[in-house]
Order: sequence, then C-alpha cells, then structure tokens
Amino acid sequence: MTETWFEQACGLPSQEHRQRAIARQRQLTKPEGALGRLETLAIELAALQGSDAPQAQRVPVVVFAADHGVTGQGVSAYPAEVTVQMLRNFAAGGAAIAVLARELGLPLHVWDVGSRATTSITGVVSDKRRHGTDDFSTGPAMDADDLDAAFAAGRRAVETACVDGAELLVFGEMGIGNTTAASALAAVLGPLPLDELVGAGTGLDAVRMVQKKNIIARALALHGEAINAADVPGREALQRVGGLEIAAISAAMIAAAQRKVPVLVDGFIVSAAALAAVRINPGVRPWLLFSHQSAERGHVRLLETLQAQPLLALDLRLGEGSGAALALPLVRMACALHNQMATFAEASVADRGGLQ
Amino acid sequence: MTETWFEQACGLPSQEHRQRAIARQRQLTKPEGALGRLETLAIELAALQGSDAPQAQRVPVVVFAADHGVTGQGVSAYPAEVTVQMLRNFAAGGAAIAVLARELGLPLHVWDVGSRATTSITGVVSDKRRHGTDDFSTGPAMDADDLDAAFAAGRRAVETACVDGAELLVFGEMGIGNTTAASALAAVLGPLPLDELVGAGTGLDAVRMVQKKNIIARALALHGEAINAADVPGREALQRVGGLEIAAISAAMIAAAQRKVPVLVDGFIVSAAALAAVRINPGVRPWLLFSHQSAERGHVRLLETLQAQPLLALDLRLGEGSGAALALPLVRMACALHNQMATFAEASVADRGGLQ
Repeated sequence: MTETWFEQACGLPSQEHRQRAIARQRQLTKPEGALGRLETLAIELAALQGSDAPQAQRVPVVVFAADHGVTGQGVSAYPAEVTVQMLRNFAAGGAAIAVLARELGLPLHVWDVGSRATTSITGVVSDKRRHGTDDFSTGPAMDADDLDAAFAAGRRAVETACVDGAELLVFGEMGIGNTTAASALAAVLGPLPLDELVGAGTGLDAVRMVQKKNIIARALALHGEAINAADVPGREALQRVGGLEIAAISAAMIAAAQRKVPVLVDGFIVSAAALAAVRINPGVRPWLLFSHQSAERGHVRLLETLQAQPLLALDLRLGEGSGAALALPLVRMACALHNQMATFAEASVADRGGLQ
Repeated sequence: MTETWFEQACGLPSQEHRQRAIARQRQLTKPEGALGRLETLAIELAALQGSDAPQAQRVPVVVFAADHGVTGQGVSAYPAEVTVQMLRNFAAGGAAIAVLARELGLPLHVWDVGSRATTSITGVVSDKRRHGTDDFSTGPAMDADDLDAAFAAGRRAVETACVDGAELLVFGEMGIGNTTAASALAAVLGPLPLDELVGAGTGLDAVRMVQKKNIIARALALHGEAINAADVPGREALQRVGGLEIAAISAAMIAAAQRKVPVLVDGFIVSAAALAAVRINPGVRPWLLFSHQSAERGHVRLLETLQAQPLLALDLRLGEGSGAALALPLVRMACALHNQMATFAEASVADRGGLQ
C-alpha cells in the first residue's frame, strides 16, 4: 500500500517575522542593502524559523548512500565498490564531509539506504530493503515497495537528526553512478534537454560522457511516457530512473518542510532530489535554501528550473553535502550580523540624509 | 625625506611547498579537482606560508580609518561625521566587522590614521598627522610628509597585529568619501575608464553619481599628468588623489608581503589600495588573495586589472573588511580539508581506473 504522508501540507514561512526582519535590517549601522545576499538570507531564515533571531548553530548533516545498477553500463569513472569504501571513510572521519562536519561542529549521520554493503559498518545506520537499484536503462530502478522503503528511511533519518533540535538541515549523498540517475530525473521532471544536463560526474572523458548520455536517452525512451502519465510523476520518476539515496533525500526534504525545518541544499544530485520533492509536494520549495552552483554541467539548468540563487560558485563537484557545509558559515554570519549589529540609534550613528 | 622601506623586496612563495601540496591534493579521497577553488586556495596558501599544513586560524583584522576633504563636494550619501561615529561603533562591537571578528575569533585593531576625531576613542589607536585630507578636486589630498606618516602608520599597524603571530591578515577601511578616492586611484593607476569605475558608494542616486564622476574627472585633469610623470606613480597617486587610510593599507600590504604574511583582500577600496601597493612594489602581488567581488560598480574592472579571482560574489558593498571576514571560513575549511582528509591509501578507497 502506498503511503501518502508525503502529500501532507508543509508549513508556511512567517510573514510577520519576515516583515520585522526587513525592518530591523534597515536600522542596522550600514547602508541599506550593503550586506547584499546576507541580508536577504537572514530575512528569509527569520521567516522560515518564525524567529526574530534566526540561528544556524544546530545543523545536522545526513549523508544518504546507495548503489546504482546502471553502473554496470560504465557510467562512472570510479568502480561501484567505492560507494561502500566511502561509507567507511565517512564513519572514520577521513572524507571531506566528515572533516567539514567536525570543523563546523555538525552532527554527521550516515544513512545507508541501499548500498551493496552486506555487513554492518560501525557508525553507519543501515536502513535498506535492497542492495543497490536495478539498471534503469533496461527496466525500472526499483519497485513501488522499494520506493516506499526509501521514503520511510528518509523520513526516519530526519526524525533522528532532529531529536536534539535542528535549526537547519543539510543532506548529502554518496552513490557511484548517481549523476546518471540525477540527470535522468532532471531531464524528465524539468523537463530539460539531456544535452545540457549530462556532465563528467566524478571525471568521465568526452567519449564516455556521450555513452552516458546515450544510456540515459535510452532510459528516458523506456520510462518517459509512464512517468508523465503517472498520478505523481515525481514519485514515478524516482522509482523508474532515480536512486534509493536520491529518493530518501526527496522524502527527507518533504519531512523537513513538514516539520518547518529549512534545508540548505547541496549540489547537482541533491538539487535533483529537490526537484522531485517539489514536484511531489510544491509546499517544500520555500524551505529550500541553495548553497552552491556545482561545476557539474547540468546544475545551472537545474537551479534555474528551481528558481534558485545559490550562495557560492567555487567549481565544486564532490557531493556528500560538502558544498552545503561550505556555505553554512555564511548562513551563520548572516544570522550573527542580523542579531548582533548595533542600530543607528543604539550606536548614535547618523543615518543617511545629512547631505541628501 | 622620503623613506624607501616600501621598495625593499617582498618574500617569494615556496615552489617546493606548492608542489608537495599539489601532490597531496591528488591523493585525497575525492575525484581530482572536485573541491574546485578550495584546492587551489589550499595549494596557494601552502606555498605562501611555506608549510605542508596551511592554516588560517590566527588572522588579525586591522581597520584603517580616515576622513576625506572631497566630502565637501557632496560625494557621499552619508555625512562625514559618520567616519568618527563608526570608529566608536567598531570599538563598541556593534559594527559589522566587529560582529564578524567576534564570531570568527579574530583580533580587531582599529587604526585611526586621519579621521577628524579630536579626542581619543577607547579601543582605537590614534596614529595620525592630520585630520582628514584636503579636497583633491582642487589640490593634492596630502603632502609628501603626510603620505610618509600614513605609510609608517600602516607598517606599524602590521607590526602590532603580527606580534602574536599571523597566518593571514585582513585589512578593512572606514572613511566617508573613500569610494571617490578609490575610483580616482583606480582610474589613474589602472588606467581604467572612469565611466566603468564610479558607483553608488554608500547609496548615491544616479544624478549624484554623475556629479561624483565629474568631480573625479576634474581631479584627474588636475593631477593626472604629475602622477604619470612621477618616479613612483603609485605613491604620487596616493598623495594627490588617495586617502590616508588607503595609503596606510597600501603600506600595510607591502609590509605584510615583506614579512611573508599573505593578505585576504576585501572589496573596492582595499582593492584600490592593493593596486597602488602592486604599482609601488610588484612583489606584493603573490601575497594577495581576493575575498569577494563587491556590488560597487568599479570592482569588477579593478579585479580584472589585478588578475584576481575572488572567492565570493554576494552583492556586498559595506567595506570595513567585512567581505574578507566573510570569506575567511572558506580559507579555513580549505586548510582543514587539505590537512585532515584521508588519502586513498589511508582509507582503502579505490582510486579511479577500475572501469577506465
């Protein structure tokens, strides 16, 4: 039986707090607008958190991992075993996201929703119904029960991550082959032209990028019609051409928005999950803040489709939630400036007008 | 007598440490290049610091402040008194840079090299020979001794800031009217067309922006020939159309480079000071890392002239060193990733090639 929790309404940002935050920004000792994107960020977070003092101190990171049957087609520069090897690296603290989480004081949850690991890994939550998806270029990536299980895992991870309170959430991913799934998702759900979506992933050369594109084109020919005809195309797309970790992230975003916890969205794959989440439940969109524009080719178009303006553009293309973690200090400083700067009156500083 | 300390050689980055840093980045558990600008940043800092473990923990901030005679021409949206009022706000902790320094654990030094303050301000170092410059649209902003004094103050501030060790330095500025001086400097030293340099500063409307441009054009007609004919055009430009805080920052950058301490450059005004510093002593250039692209109109062209790729572009236009402070966490995280990530061998992760 298909559950329908994911269709339930998300919260709404507080217009009252937004207005008060706008008014406060005007009184702070700086020319109006001089803090640019940090002003709008603080205002947005005040509205989302329903708070006059927005915060981003407690920010759990959940990295969802799974394997992809389509890797059998040679769509990645790295062997599929790397997914499980990297799970150990997350847990041991040697991966980029682990280093960043430590630096920033963020609790790191590693959630295996479908890797090929057959033994338990210390520090990794195993929450999976299967080991990797099927090759979506020859059939659906998963069945409906698999999708429900991935959705339930995503929601459970959010519940767990929020136990001690969360002012913001970061979701990351690990899954060799997942730029292929993300490109397919973005192509069908955008819809967006495949030519502008397919990129090098972890490092394909030009010849193998063409092969990757052809494999996705074949998958879209096979599944596109059924996806577009489905009751909930976002879910159908996740099931047919998505991945277990991508589906879990879509569900986690919906669960976060329903709990009124904003999400700082990472790069290409997490953005594809965001697109699916928004297609499934449009109420998710206001809860998404975008961290960075990835060097992965399709991200620009995906961000346009989501009408998203990311904070950073540093040619990152690592995933794991690393881009979101890198942007987090900006969110924290936007809050600190909003909450701690003196007003013109408090500091006895003349506002503009003296020479106007 | 003109001192010549500022012409002495700057240090050179360590090519040996650069090569070792490049080799290390290749071994970290990520696709090569996947951390984009953060990889090149860590490599650059390793070369500049001559270290295998680049750091940006100890980062003193020095805000240089001074007043500008040209404000009598109505070139700013704010009255000139705001310079001194903001000095108090820096010292009291209510200004943006004070909030950011506190958040990031940075020692904040406020150095008054020429404001109109006539009484001492607690927490502000008074190191000045005069109270504000003369109106440079009708004569030189200062005389040669004033320039030497501002240079000596900039160098002294660096010595003071580095007493407890400094891995990186941030310089900020406060001075109502200083986008006017910075635009004039960039125009003559670039050289760059005035039309592409003059912006709204703290918030001029279109009509007053034209007035501001005309005032600078008049100043350039008055001083341009003498600047270009001078032995050291960078110094002559600072003296004739610069400002005391801008000159102090140019000197501080030279002093930093001579001590082999890299500088994280802030926005438009600090970049204009950087241009003057590089024209005076080209050995400064390798020691400058650029933090952000300001919303102030001329910054794009100024950055091009300096061949600089800043880290952030967040529509900031506040000054004070705030943009550099906002970029600092990226530098810190670049270091943490470089120093702490596991290598493929350490983490037993397969490098690419499995499917190549």
